[in-house]
Amino acid sequence: MTSPQRRPGGRTARVRTQVHEAVLAELAEHGYDALTIDAVAARAGVHRTTVYRRWGDVGGLLADVLDAASDDDWRPPDTGSLQGDLAALNHEIQDALTADPPIVTALIAASFRSDKAELAQRRLWEDRYTRCETVVTRAVQRGELPPGTSPRPLLIAATAPIYHHLILLRTPPDPDLPDQAARTAAQAATTGAFLTS
Amino acid sequence: MTSPQRRPGGRTARVRTQVHEAVLAELAEHGYDALTIDAVAARAGVHRTTVYRRWGDVGGLLADVLDAASDDDWRPPDTGSLQGDLAALNHEIQDALTADPPIVTALIAASFRSDKAELAQRRLWEDRYTRCETVVTRAVQRGELPPGTSPRPLLIAATAPIYHHLILLRTPPDPDLPDQAARTAAQAATTGAFLTS
Repeated sequence: MTSPQRRPGGRTARVRTQVHEAVLAELAEHGYDALTIDAVAARAGVHRTTVYRRWGDVGGLLADVLDAASDDDWRPPDTGSLQGDLAALNHEIQDALTADPPIVTALIAASFRSDKAELAQRRLWEDRYTRCETVVTRAVQRGELPPGTSPRPLLIAATAPIYHHLILLRTPPDPDLPDQAARTAAQAATTGAFLTS
Repeated sequence: MTSPQRRPGGRTARVRTQVHEAVLAELAEHGYDALTIDAVAARAGVHRTTVYRRWGDVGGLLADVLDAASDDDWRPPDTGSLQGDLAALNHEIQDALTADPPIVTALIAASFRSDKAELAQRRLWEDRYTRCETVVTRAVQRGELPPGTSPRPLLIAATAPIYHHLILLRTPPDPDLPDQAARTAAQAATTGAFLTS
């Protein structure tokens, strides 16, 4: 699969957007098992041959949807404090994971089904966590955290409990968890728990 | 599905064990997509009608395998300190999630595919976390932790980063992570981060 070479907003980009929207709608309504190139093409109003030629299979479709999710200007919250940023980030994650229709959780579940989608999901996580590192570097610059604090383990410690509850344990969302997990990670970071050794 | 009523070690229990072993072997070798009642029956040396009658479908098979995992006498590590217990627990989890063949990760992935398996996986998580609560109550009794420390959020904070890395982010195992995540959670707990409000 090559990336579209035509001008943004042209027909190629329009088809891609229509197909992505159809993938998400089909996934949300019927789940991965019912996701087919034919259903996506019909829903997008695009010829099935176009979809087969450009995306190959369902895994290719999902991978492209996941890759497109990085083509945005999302930035992590900037509230002025480490704990505030992590709490706001966790609320964003909890909201996304409990949204209706459950697009994000459906994509994560689907990434267990296709090697292409799995790789794309990993690229998306990597993109998101990389963007979030500024939360930690800002906190170091403000003097909230000791220099040498490693951003990634701190970000994982802050956010992992939300994913663990909602994706793996599948417990009902706990409204206090985003703040609690943020506070715990921020406090640990303050005492040097994430210093690079 | 009813639970076997015959004596343990009898034919019913033997068939169940053979079928469970066949499910795990098929899952490890070929993955969920190739998992069928017929393949399991053939591998177990059991008549397919027996398997259909007793387990119904692949989801029922997986659910019974997951439920059987609770029929053991597993207890969390007892090293004499909270941080030691959590670190040993995290090493157990990391070892299980990186074992070859990848039985545990295959079961977790499969639990996204079947409602019955998902419910059984949730029962298994619940069983494991409940058994682990003694790690926290022992630490309170030793005076390591303030009374009123809530076991579950502390256990989730300690273990979630391991699952997040290996199941969702699918990053290579980090040999330092089990100890680091245990230390961070233990330190936070010591300062009262998990007191029930």
